[in-house]
Amino acid sequence: MEKKKLTDIASLGEFGLIDHLTGNIKLRHSDTLLGVGDDAAVLDQGDHVSIVTKDLLVEGVHFDMVYTPLKHLGYKAVTVNLSDVYAMNGEPRQLLVGIAISRRYSLEALEELYEGMLLACERYNVDMAGGDTTTSPAGLMISITAIGRAKKEEVVYRSGAKPMDLLYVSGDLGAAYCGQLVLQREKQAFKANPQMQPEIEKYPYVLERQLKPEPRQDVVAMLKKAGIHPTSMIDISDGLASEIMHICNKSSVGATIYEEKIPVDQRMAQVAHEFNIDPTTCALSGGEDYELLFTINQKDYEKIKGLDAVHPIGHITEAGQGQNLFTSSGQLVKLTAQGWDPIKKG
Amino acid sequence: MEKKKLTDIASLGEFGLIDHLTGNIKLRHSDTLLGVGDDAAVLDQGDHVSIVTKDLLVEGVHFDMVYTPLKHLGYKAVTVNLSDVYAMNGEPRQLLVGIAISRRYSLEALEELYEGMLLACERYNVDMAGGDTTTSPAGLMISITAIGRAKKEEVVYRSGAKPMDLLYVSGDLGAAYCGQLVLQREKQAFKANPQMQPEIEKYPYVLERQLKPEPRQDVVAMLKKAGIHPTSMIDISDGLASEIMHICNKSSVGATIYEEKIPVDQRMAQVAHEFNIDPTTCALSGGEDYELLFTINQKDYEKIKGLDAVHPIGHITEAGQGQNLFTSSGQLVKLTAQGWDPIKKG
Repeated sequence: MEKKKLTDIASLGEFGLIDHLTGNIKLRHSDTLLGVGDDAAVLDQGDHVSIVTKDLLVEGVHFDMVYTPLKHLGYKAVTVNLSDVYAMNGEPRQLLVGIAISRRYSLEALEELYEGMLLACERYNVDMAGGDTTTSPAGLMISITAIGRAKKEEVVYRSGAKPMDLLYVSGDLGAAYCGQLVLQREKQAFKANPQMQPEIEKYPYVLERQLKPEPRQDVVAMLKKAGIHPTSMIDISDGLASEIMHICNKSSVGATIYEEKIPVDQRMAQVAHEFNIDPTTCALSGGEDYELLFTINQKDYEKIKGLDAVHPIGHITEAGQGQNLFTSSGQLVKLTAQGWDPIKKG
Repeated sequence: MEKKKLTDIASLGEFGLIDHLTGNIKLRHSDTLLGVGDDAAVLDQGDHVSIVTKDLLVEGVHFDMVYTPLKHLGYKAVTVNLSDVYAMNGEPRQLLVGIAISRRYSLEALEELYEGMLLACERYNVDMAGGDTTTSPAGLMISITAIGRAKKEEVVYRSGAKPMDLLYVSGDLGAAYCGQLVLQREKQAFKANPQMQPEIEKYPYVLERQLKPEPRQDVVAMLKKAGIHPTSMIDISDGLASEIMHICNKSSVGATIYEEKIPVDQRMAQVAHEFNIDPTTCALSGGEDYELLFTINQKDYEKIKGLDAVHPIGHITEAGQGQNLFTSSGQLVKLTAQGWDPIKKG
């Protein structure tokens, strides 16, 4: 009997896999304004919309208990979900927490995790409104659903970018990835010599960016106050290159960005050099920065140009021109979306 | 140095654990009408409410891949979440799907899982509106968030039962648990002798109840049509005894039920006897029936008495009287909530 050949899920990549599985979904309800394919689903509630997003964090894939304090982990599990709501220009209001945990964790460990989650809820004014706690045969898995609210006309999708729009990012990029490099190196050193003290005091900035990311609520508020309505927006979880691809795909446009304009922090660049990695590579492909990438109409340039914390990095082009990077040495290269791919890592 | 003594999470039980972790949560938003502590969170949307629930299904805890067809698993993962929305008297409309999966699963396996989920979406008229797919170091984990809708005054909570109310259940109880007993026995037999054909054709009813539970959308619709508004309601995921305890705790009441009134199917009773288990024990503690347990005001008795599919099993009493079972042999015994406890199983 011939054995049916099975397909390795890694062969499609994370985004290919999601497209493959959800590409044919028909929506039945008119209140489902947006389904699969953005940072969150958008549901019509009459005079406003709900923005609903969920993310999974899996031990051994998204975090390593060797160097992740549980309180930080709880905090990060919440903030990465809030980041998706802000990326739709919404205000997060509630979240539901699902936890699957093995019995090697103590009650005190769970309390620390909840302490971190509740701290993030307090800081971002969100209600923990429910969830599910269960056991797992091994390890810890956190599944959070965040629910936000916005006026219908306020929501910003990935799909609204137009040629000639200006492309901006908030904050600086690549540091979260460098933080992970440091943590992994210290883990290896500790394995080799458990007596050794970890050398982490030298790297507070990149470690904080990795372990305790803050979603850019402030940027969303600042843009609103300045009267700027982005034409498209996404948060940077998988690396700048990958997120530019998402906006270009959903908006059917191209983009050109300039290496010298990509905001990098000196403390990140130092670590990158220590690891012999180009800082631009960290910014383009590192991921987990949870900064915002957005586009604005050129008419808003006067309003945005004085604002701190957001930086123009390029502009949107016609789709035919693809996604390009002007390097600091004057070359034009194609951007590739080698975003952080959890399926390939597994 | 003194080592701090750590507490085993199993020592609190699932419900004790959730109470412990979430007992002090303050709600900040007036639109969070109900947080932790019912089948779902309830969010005010102006002229209606959203009902949001999430459940985790973990391989090795909630399902065993040896005897669970992936399509059934996908179907069940969706329907158990819809059941929570129906238990609040809401209409499920959207769901978000989070999947963490190890690389030993093929694309074809994931397709089967999605086929089951989408079949349930079609049957219950629900939009699959988003989610997250990631890898896991081992096994499969499914995290589903279901979102429903109801008029504010239609929502039925666990907390509304009053002394003298009548207690009803839909369908029949205990069969899902008996289905699991059969599947586990066949798994052991197969381990002992892989050449053996499984003996499962004899048990279609209990197996279907275990592998492919249907949420009671029909019962909710029937009660609405009859003009009956339950005073409290919950779905039976952990066993009748445990769910009665939940209603009594949240409503600050007691309850008395009658063994002879508990609906059991003859096909379930047969399997229970095969395994030397009392069918009443299966009904009280088996769980996973996904039937509805609800209370009504006595004034609605005339409206409900002719209805199929729902069965009176007792009545609500003052809190001081506790939860009691009148056995068929005429004894009055205290009910204990040895509901299905996933933490203790782990």
